[in-house]
Amino acid sequence: MDAPAFPNLTVSEHPLVRHKLSILRDRATPTKLFKELVEELATLLAYDALRDLALEPAPVETPLERTTGWRVAGKKLTLVPILRAGLGMVEGVLRLVPSARVGHVGLYRDHATLQPVDYYFRVPGDAAERFFALGFAFEQMRGNFVDLARCVAERAGTPERGKADKQS
Amino acid sequence: MDAPAFPNLTVSEHPLVRHKLSILRDRATPTKLFKELVEELATLLAYDALRDLALEPAPVETPLERTTGWRVAGKKLTLVPILRAGLGMVEGVLRLVPSARVGHVGLYRDHATLQPVDYYFRVPGDAAERFFALGFAFEQMRGNFVDLARCVAERAGTPERGKADKQS
Amino acid sequence: MDAPAFPNLTVSEHPLVRHKLSILRDRATPTKLFKELVEELATLLAYDALRDLALEPAPVETPLERTTGWRVAGKKLTLVPILRAGLGMVEGVLRLVPSARVGHVGLYRDHATLQPVDYYFRVPGDAAERFFALGFAFEQMRGNFVDLARCVAERAGTPERGKADKQS
Amino acid sequence: MDAPAFPNLTVSEHPLVRHKLSILRDRATPTKLFKELVEELATLLAYDALRDLALEPAPVETPLERTTGWRVAGKKLTLVPILRAGLGMVEGVLRLVPSARVGHVGLYRDHATLQPVDYYFRVPGDAAERFFALGFAFEQMRGNFVDLARCVAERAGTPERGKADKQS
Repeated sequence: MDAPAFPNLTVSEHPLVRHKLSILRDRATPTKLFKELVEELATLLAYDALRDLALEPAPVETPLERTTGWRVAGKKLTLVPILRAGLGMVEGVLRLVPSARVGHVGLYRDHATLQPVDYYFRVPGDAAERFFALGFAFEQMRGNFVDLARCVAERAGTPERGKADKQS
Repeated sequence: MDAPAFPNLTVSEHPLVRHKLSILRDRATPTKLFKELVEELATLLAYDALRDLALEPAPVETPLERTTGWRVAGKKLTLVPILRAGLGMVEGVLRLVPSARVGHVGLYRDHATLQPVDYYFRVPGDAAERFFALGFAFEQMRGNFVDLARCVAERAGTPERGKADKQS
Repeated sequence: MDAPAFPNLTVSEHPLVRHKLSILRDRATPTKLFKELVEELATLLAYDALRDLALEPAPVETPLERTTGWRVAGKKLTLVPILRAGLGMVEGVLRLVPSARVGHVGLYRDHATLQPVDYYFRVPGDAAERFFALGFAFEQMRGNFVDLARCVAERAGTPERGKADKQS
Repeated sequence: MDAPAFPNLTVSEHPLVRHKLSILRDRATPTKLFKELVEELATLLAYDALRDLALEPAPVETPLERTTGWRVAGKKLTLVPILRAGLGMVEGVLRLVPSARVGHVGLYRDHATLQPVDYYFRVPGDAAERFFALGFAFEQMRGNFVDLARCVAERAGTPERGKADKQS
């Protein structure tokens, strides 16, 4: 898909994504199936999102020989679902990267200032380098991902983390 | 990867496949993790294997409008794990196509004739057109997939299905 | 277990609960295994928590005959994980009741007034009759469940639901 | 339930078992839901089947102290699904005991001799002491579990294991 205004945007064209998205949009789809589809779509999108992970050689001792394999280089992934719709995508991504860490962020847009406000922010402190925001970007949430990226970049890794002391 | 002798062969180069395959090969990997990796690898490989599924337009009634979406065209998929190692891959593929049907085939190679013998064959009768064999092609099983394709092509869809009457 | 001060308290004595709880408490348990244990424990505890669900007769047409079976009577269950630790229990309970609805509540105790404050509250409006709070009641969270019950009883079902307008 | 002829028989009376069993029996239940119900029922039945596992004290080092917890005593569990219907129950039991080992047995009854014949037998060699058969005992399979118990008792643990050399 041409999306010149968003050079970083990838639109999945996998036939299963299109198929499942059509069922997801159907207003007759029951809640349980909707939840399952969100997880399945998250798995499919994670395949694309993680396609360029850097690898580094790693020794491996197989039952037959000592040889060299590969491992993902760098920091662990951190998934950051935007409350609440993004929560449903977490399990789908964890199916491919079960060792990922999980943070949570809640955002709303202040009606007066039009600025995003994070009313909830719990992201592991050293996650700023490599995190993945999960959410549904319906029209009314346009901008959530950009807002979230700014939020995490500004706040993750800083010792003082706002409301963090209040929450379990 | 160049594999001129097998023009239909696809070797996944997704970094997660390489990473997980290296852990899978490690002789220190415990059984529970091995099982999880097989499922995760099956999900990743299914993404590639199902990349060219044909779609057809399908009407969809969203909460906002009646429009046109997509659905996978043609028959349902049938997964055919080769007993026993292929069983571990079934759940991983079903995560992407939970409505697929499942058959089961057991094969061994007769030591005298070198021909494959299916000692177990339970595949839905009308599955011949579109099925997916699941298994590990370690060296000693080389040829299993070709044998299986021949088996299913010859036997699926025929009313008489060998040992089928004996088994639950 | 005798717990006269809490007549409604049930302490699971299932051997798998005791076994898994011991691994959960081990400080050497890695994060991925911890997450899996929380889900498994949630499934085991759900068995006990749902042991007294009322049933009502329901007609069922089997392949052989029309007869009478059973179905759970009354409203759908609503799971209410307390942010964030309770989130990890949701999938474990949904394994037994996949059609349950899910709400989310965040609570903290005001240091000055010692009263619970719900900084996050998203529970389906008609859930007050039958809901299940999910969370870990470590020492420092003592009282969370009682607070939550009061919260939901006071607020669920009322048209005005606080911060609900701000959140996706 | 009174079942004097089978003193070891336990009939689950959990309301979720009754509820799900009624949907399972409904001839209108689609295949995907049937498969999910089988897994959920297997989880519920596993709770009951594993209720008497013996425990032994085990040291545990928590973040706060060194203390004593519990662990399941004795050998690992081995699940033995009867091909093919029992396969659908494996995942449901593994949700509670993910470290269990899995064997597979195929049985049919010889029409002439009325004796059970195991046309497929792959059970870890040292599993005879503690194994769990998984299957559906519909009318036409009556006796499968007794046959299976005899099979495993006679053959597991013996070095020579019949067709084992032929199969992957």
